[in-house]
Amino acid sequence: EEKVEDVVLKVPVNVVRLKIGEVAEATSVVVLPVCKAEEGERVIMEAPSEIRKEGEFGIVVAEKGWEKWVVLPAWGPVVNLGKGVVVSFLDARVLPWKANNRWCKEEPILVVADRSKREVENDDGFYLVKDDGNDVGLKVQRGSILKEMGVNECLGNVVIVVRPPTENDGDMLSEEDWD
Amino acid sequence: EEKVEDVVLKVPVNVVRLKIGEVAEATSVVVLPVCKAEEGERVIMEAPSEIRKEGEFGIVVAEKGWEKWVVLPAWGPVVNLGKGVVVSFLDARVLPWKANNRWCKEEPILVVADRSKREVENDDGFYLVKDDGNDVGLKVQRGSILKEMGVNECLGNVVIVVRPPTENDGDMLSEEDWD
Repeated sequence: EEKVEDVVLKVPVNVVRLKIGEVAEATSVVVLPVCKAEEGERVIMEAPSEIRKEGEFGIVVAEKGWEKWVVLPAWGPVVNLGKGVVVSFLDARVLPWKANNRWCKEEPILVVADRSKREVENDDGFYLVKDDGNDVGLKVQRGSILKEMGVNECLGNVVIVVRPPTENDGDMLSEEDWD
Repeated sequence: EEKVEDVVLKVPVNVVRLKIGEVAEATSVVVLPVCKAEEGERVIMEAPSEIRKEGEFGIVVAEKGWEKWVVLPAWGPVVNLGKGVVVSFLDARVLPWKANNRWCKEEPILVVADRSKREVENDDGFYLVKDDGNDVGLKVQRGSILKEMGVNECLGNVVIVVRPPTENDGDMLSEEDWD
């Protein structure tokens, strides 16, 4: 069990739990386009990639229309993303944690990826990749494993993983772990 | 001068000033599609009208794609709008305040309208209507005046007018005036 926590806490990608009401209380927010994981690679790549805030009301202007959006607190890693996209997964088993923790099966997650960083560069990095081996067709994989497999390209570098708000905030894995 | 304030404070539509850094003091936010006033009636009517929040992350799902969105605090009047749309104006002279106050010329505003309420019903109501008499092509007009003119239909009932954040919050007109 100790080893498991070790693995999770050492990862250089942030796993944060959204707090109830956190978006509303944030001093500034980020709005990003959302795809459902099951919509697949094509839709993820089609989502708008140039999103700017305009004027005094911070109107979000994208270079093309999109149906699904999410508001997140302006956490460091999600501000000024190159080509940010949010992929929503029905559960967290797509994450490469060694242990298939109970929360993995029970919780939806949001994976925020930067599609302007499609090269698998860092062993310690996490990357959104296609995965024909699971029913979703996508997963998050560590750089070291992708390199071993000879995979150099991905759909995007994962900058943060967001877990949903919960009544119980005492969970070890919910700790913020900023770089 | 007193008379002017009177007029403004008696109106049954809310004029609120967004506070600096405020996303909300409420427990949640609302995301609405935005049109620029100069884009005109057609675009305003084309903006998505069925917008719901989905799942634990409150993902905003519209029935069609749209380029421009704004995040507002979940103020009473903007929650559960029928077919909500936000029209951004470069200045506030389109409002039917009798006095052409200084702030009207200097400030952009957002007019939040409900396109499911296109009938001019209340004398005291405010309605978004076409106006060929000004260069924007749109204005906000009082129900009583529209009725006098025999205008029964509008683009939408105005539920709130939003002014931008400012350093100086001592402005009488910025008072919230909820129904």
